[in-house]
Amino acid sequence: MGRLDYLAYIKERMPQKRYMHTLGVEETAMKLAKHYGASVEAAQTAAILHDVAKYADVAWMEQIVRDEQLDMRLIGWGSELLHGPVAAVIATREFGITDEDVLNAMRYHTTGRANMSNLEKILYVADMLEPNRQFPGVDELREMMYDDLNDVLEACVKHSLTHLIASGIAVFPQSIECYNDLMSSERNL
Amino acid sequence: MGRLDYLAYIKERMPQKRYMHTLGVEETAMKLAKHYGASVEAAQTAAILHDVAKYADVAWMEQIVRDEQLDMRLIGWGSELLHGPVAAVIATREFGITDEDVLNAMRYHTTGRANMSNLEKILYVADMLEPNRQFPGVDELREMMYDDLNDVLEACVKHSLTHLIASGIAVFPQSIECYNDLMSSERNL
Repeated sequence: MGRLDYLAYIKERMPQKRYMHTLGVEETAMKLAKHYGASVEAAQTAAILHDVAKYADVAWMEQIVRDEQLDMRLIGWGSELLHGPVAAVIATREFGITDEDVLNAMRYHTTGRANMSNLEKILYVADMLEPNRQFPGVDELREMMYDDLNDVLEACVKHSLTHLIASGIAVFPQSIECYNDLMSSERNL
Repeated sequence: MGRLDYLAYIKERMPQKRYMHTLGVEETAMKLAKHYGASVEAAQTAAILHDVAKYADVAWMEQIVRDEQLDMRLIGWGSELLHGPVAAVIATREFGITDEDVLNAMRYHTTGRANMSNLEKILYVADMLEPNRQFPGVDELREMMYDDLNDVLEACVKHSLTHLIASGIAVFPQSIECYNDLMSSERNL
């Protein structure tokens, strides 16, 4: 099982635009991994599979949350919050992936969390800044990508939260835990 | 025990600027209470005492959190988060106030929370928009004050969160619970 197997599997489960996004995340995550000294192979696997559940049925994903005893706070938040944690379950079931760092990168690519590993940070940033992404401010964020991984992550998390609040979209508690963790050095906690 | 007793007590415990802010909150909270059909007397009491602990010693306030079995998440967040819940304790100890709605308005005036009462909403809004407050956007918020209490509360909460994130200041989880609760009708949760 390798890249071509993963790609064949995901291609059937998402529209072409999402597939192109995934290839962009793969490319960006691998570059970031190389630059910041993380495993390029791990970044590649996590990137290709991170959106595998993006179009899965919500009720089916919520059943996985219950069956696998995942974070019960996910129930009711819809596919945007479910698809990361469920992607990790699919990666193990379908492809036998057991590397917890790879699985965590997939699990937390939407929300972030406190105490993220470098691989988790890389997938979060790559998902937001891969070349196909277009939103106001993306170029300024891209310019930071290879300067400092924590700085660009912080800027991406702040941008996401500000966008959610401006749009009146609820914020999953783990996203605030992620933000507060990034701010904690300034709070001296 | 009444207004003059409360004022004498707080005047000794805060700088003149904060005292003037408190009088502004009193005036605004009473107007809002009258406009929205809440108890004007309850709004007045909560307003005068809401910042009574603003300059209290942090270690002393943290001990109150432990002694009174308040929300332990408050420990480590400093006086900005402690002074509301501790004000309610002082109001009961010093003045025998037992009206839970008055105490809750004081407790949650900084963070907000899910399922706020009208009195809680009024104090939150009055604290942010009383005439002495000056910050970019305050006039637009003031223009909304007497149109719809939920709308102006939502605008104030969004403004606060956006300001905290732009400033890199940690967000207390209860503030996100408040925000998510206000957004929940749009999420159909």
